[in-house]
Amino acid sequence: MGVKSDIEIAQEAQMLDIREVAAKVGVAEDDLELYGKYKAKISDDLYSKLEDKKDGKLILVTAINPTPAGEGKTTITIGLTQALNKMGKKSVAALREPSLGPCFGIKGGAAGGGYSQVVPMEELNLHFTGDFHAITSANNLLAAMLDNHIMHGNELRIDTKHIVWKRCMDMNDRTLRNIVIGMGGRMDGVMREDHFIITVASEIMAVLCLAKDMKDLKERLGRVIVAYNVDGEPVTADDLKATGSMAALLADAIKPNMVQTLEHTPVLVHGGPFANIAHGCNSVRATRLALKLSDYAVTEAGFGADLGAEKFLDIKCRLSELKPDAVVIVATVRALKYNGGVAKDKLNEENMDALKAGIVNLDKHIENMQKFGIPVVVTLNAFITDTQEEYEFIKKHCEDAGCEFALAKVWEKGGEGGLELAEKVIESIENKKAEYKPIYEDSDSLKEKIEKVAKEIYGADGVTYDDAATKELQHIEQMGFGNFPVCIAKTQYSLSDNPKLLGRPENFTINVREAYVDAGAGFVVILTGKILTMPGLPTHPAAENINYDEESGKITGLF
Amino acid sequence: MGVKSDIEIAQEAQMLDIREVAAKVGVAEDDLELYGKYKAKISDDLYSKLEDKKDGKLILVTAINPTPAGEGKTTITIGLTQALNKMGKKSVAALREPSLGPCFGIKGGAAGGGYSQVVPMEELNLHFTGDFHAITSANNLLAAMLDNHIMHGNELRIDTKHIVWKRCMDMNDRTLRNIVIGMGGRMDGVMREDHFIITVASEIMAVLCLAKDMKDLKERLGRVIVAYNVDGEPVTADDLKATGSMAALLADAIKPNMVQTLEHTPVLVHGGPFANIAHGCNSVRATRLALKLSDYAVTEAGFGADLGAEKFLDIKCRLSELKPDAVVIVATVRALKYNGGVAKDKLNEENMDALKAGIVNLDKHIENMQKFGIPVVVTLNAFITDTQEEYEFIKKHCEDAGCEFALAKVWEKGGEGGLELAEKVIESIENKKAEYKPIYEDSDSLKEKIEKVAKEIYGADGVTYDDAATKELQHIEQMGFGNFPVCIAKTQYSLSDNPKLLGRPENFTINVREAYVDAGAGFVVILTGKILTMPGLPTHPAAENINYDEESGKITGLF
Repeated sequence: MGVKSDIEIAQEAQMLDIREVAAKVGVAEDDLELYGKYKAKISDDLYSKLEDKKDGKLILVTAINPTPAGEGKTTITIGLTQALNKMGKKSVAALREPSLGPCFGIKGGAAGGGYSQVVPMEELNLHFTGDFHAITSANNLLAAMLDNHIMHGNELRIDTKHIVWKRCMDMNDRTLRNIVIGMGGRMDGVMREDHFIITVASEIMAVLCLAKDMKDLKERLGRVIVAYNVDGEPVTADDLKATGSMAALLADAIKPNMVQTLEHTPVLVHGGPFANIAHGCNSVRATRLALKLSDYAVTEAGFGADLGAEKFLDIKCRLSELKPDAVVIVATVRALKYNGGVAKDKLNEENMDALKAGIVNLDKHIENMQKFGIPVVVTLNAFITDTQEEYEFIKKHCEDAGCEFALAKVWEKGGEGGLELAEKVIESIENKKAEYKPIYEDSDSLKEKIEKVAKEIYGADGVTYDDAATKELQHIEQMGFGNFPVCIAKTQYSLSDNPKLLGRPENFTINVREAYVDAGAGFVVILTGKILTMPGLPTHPAAENINYDEESGKITGLF
Repeated sequence: MGVKSDIEIAQEAQMLDIREVAAKVGVAEDDLELYGKYKAKISDDLYSKLEDKKDGKLILVTAINPTPAGEGKTTITIGLTQALNKMGKKSVAALREPSLGPCFGIKGGAAGGGYSQVVPMEELNLHFTGDFHAITSANNLLAAMLDNHIMHGNELRIDTKHIVWKRCMDMNDRTLRNIVIGMGGRMDGVMREDHFIITVASEIMAVLCLAKDMKDLKERLGRVIVAYNVDGEPVTADDLKATGSMAALLADAIKPNMVQTLEHTPVLVHGGPFANIAHGCNSVRATRLALKLSDYAVTEAGFGADLGAEKFLDIKCRLSELKPDAVVIVATVRALKYNGGVAKDKLNEENMDALKAGIVNLDKHIENMQKFGIPVVVTLNAFITDTQEEYEFIKKHCEDAGCEFALAKVWEKGGEGGLELAEKVIESIENKKAEYKPIYEDSDSLKEKIEKVAKEIYGADGVTYDDAATKELQHIEQMGFGNFPVCIAKTQYSLSDNPKLLGRPENFTINVREAYVDAGAGFVVILTGKILTMPGLPTHPAAENINYDEESGKITGLF
């Protein structure tokens, strides 16, 4: 008997009607907009009704730098919220929505794993409640209005060589990375170079995730810079009169979605920005709502703690006044050994030397989270090849560093396998005071902000800048955006900007190649390398194996 | 006090919960997948449960050639179904879904008008239940897999100069009509010319609308031709292994959507293909379901009867075994005068001579529908500027032609204003036998089919062919698609292929410039002129006036 695949486990699950799931945290049917039997959007009114209710505790789940060995951060997040509920605590998780692109590329589905999954898994991965399609539409309406404006006389004197807005598609389609549009006759538009990005990389995604409400959303949309005019001044969505229509397109998308775990506990799944050129967390609205609905809200940030958690803490928390009470750092024995120099095909063997060499990566992330003033719990996502000696070593190491430690067997056992972790998290919250402070101040210059993150979080000696980047940073400050936080795009595989430097690199500098402002989202993007904003498909994409079986009515091949 | 706009009337409506609306025609909550409170998809099981139930009568609403004066075909369709329900008959309407593109362009919303509208109007116009987004995704996944295949070695030996599949977007964006993709480096794909079309022009839309069930949908998707190889042989979606993923993306989209009229009668709104390069009617599944759920199913076809109704009868009915019992032809006094040569700004004045000159357009459409063996009811969508004498003249004229006639005041009065029309339709169905027969046989050659439509329906003397078209038609027959029906793309403004020839043109020929096969949809597209498959935005698009009002929570500016 083989091990069941994630989609098999998910499809065997007996889901509860989402109204029953919502009722567990006191949400009545009137506050739900049902999307089928197992998905619902939450009405705008609910948050206002709960405004005076005390917030629950906020738990942020992050990880060491990702490796090919896999960490299972989402699996832990779901396992932890399942475990908390099993203990009789009210817990709601807040997660990102998956993108269609990777689903057809390499990744298959993305909704946790094993017995710690969010369901309905197929619907979550395909279209879900249409939020990403709404973002795609709003993004591309703005682009169409921009090119239409240029063709019809260009009253705003847009410099067609200085257009920064790109079209988007929720698809891995590399041939759209660099294109020429507006060919053909005079009535077929003005010819220029253009680029498609994947929807999760659109600034609209970041805007939607950071907006407090529709009013705030509209203000942010209106500020979005689409191009510069011939005098170098920004041209915005407001200038193109596109804000109202974009808001109308996003009026449903801004509402958080509720689904359930395999153990029928409520999960809010809402928004999903990139974790490099954007801030990599689910929407502010979903996190806030989770805090109102539960004693323990569990949320997650993208990639490792140097990217996702740093942005969660320096961008999302700063802009929304959220304050985490505990951080869970996820690691695996295998990934730590990989960081210690073991090849991918040798990770199944016990190797204490490699573990000792690799654990420095975890150490740095623990220190980093402590710099933000948040107590840390380390957890290992258990694998069958792990040994007791390896566990003992890591446990002692974490405790010496002042963290709680727990082994998590949530993939195999669901919430039951997360009870130890849940207990440690609660213990930490009850005994250790969180005193959240960001790494830099609003009033720091952009370069000071970059340098604080590079030195304190990445462990760099300093930062170098390409001339163009220095010029762009000056221009951004001149335009009045110097008080924005910085959103640094860097490789996720290393604490440095070189993906090959594993463990805890030292004696390196970070080089900033480019910078631009996302005035709607409210941050300045700092590029330390070439970031691909439109992925491609592999030789044999996952799409070749996905199917709809008309006999059973089931989707197969998502994994 | 001014006249209320359509969106004002729609937003003032007290909608019923869609479960109550569905219950009126015996659909239980178990067979609904709710999308909020006022929209639902109908489960796949319902049709099977009703399989043995006797079908109701099928009423097709069509119109004279469209004019700038406006005809209000959708308004009549909705008014008629409201009226039938008011009379105590069970009636369900089946309509097309509107596209986002025109909504932001010139048109604003599209869901009937006045007191004969489908609600919720804003949701219907913006995203609705996501069907079009699913079609866009399936279309573009196929495109991405095609270009990915070419980059990764092109095992299928696709001729990159003979790719016929285009990307699509549900947006009016003319700068995407003619583009170059795959620029940049070696890993950014293979460079070639490409084109975006609007989603409603995608063959996937036609496939979805003609598919009987998921099995049929998959077979049709698999047959879709994306390109030709270097030997000139077709390369299909099946060859690219894309069929299963596309089907998975369309698994929800294939389910018909239920909403309500302003008088709380059920309406199925599902699918919306172009009426020139495609067949211009809502899905076969929605029409069939409407027949099972009601005594009188009312449906509509795009543009005038020469395009929409001809395709409904020669394509949709042929492929799905539907047989209409009556055809309603919609005209207005103003449009008939316009056909008689009156300028747009003089249409408010009584002009019997112009009316007599213009009514020949109506005559020809009546004759055409009678050629298909279907009894005709003519209705006038009443305007305040119409005179009694004008009405009397048209009434007598229609009765002389063997048709029923009724004035419809459904814009102003809703179902109440359509009672006379509803009575005439029932009278016609009860007293006149419909003996549906298509204009041409499957076994006719493609040129014979084109000529039969051109001569018998358009009134042409004959058909001429560009050399390229003759060659393409031969190639299509050689590939084995000669038995397909023809889908002729022609200007909607005239019975001829010259948009300026109003009334009932004579002594003209139709010229065929191009032809191609939609092997998945199952028809051969015949182009008689340049058809724009990606619209543009006007100087001041409707999008500039659409807004979301955060105080009231309402969308404004859709009209």
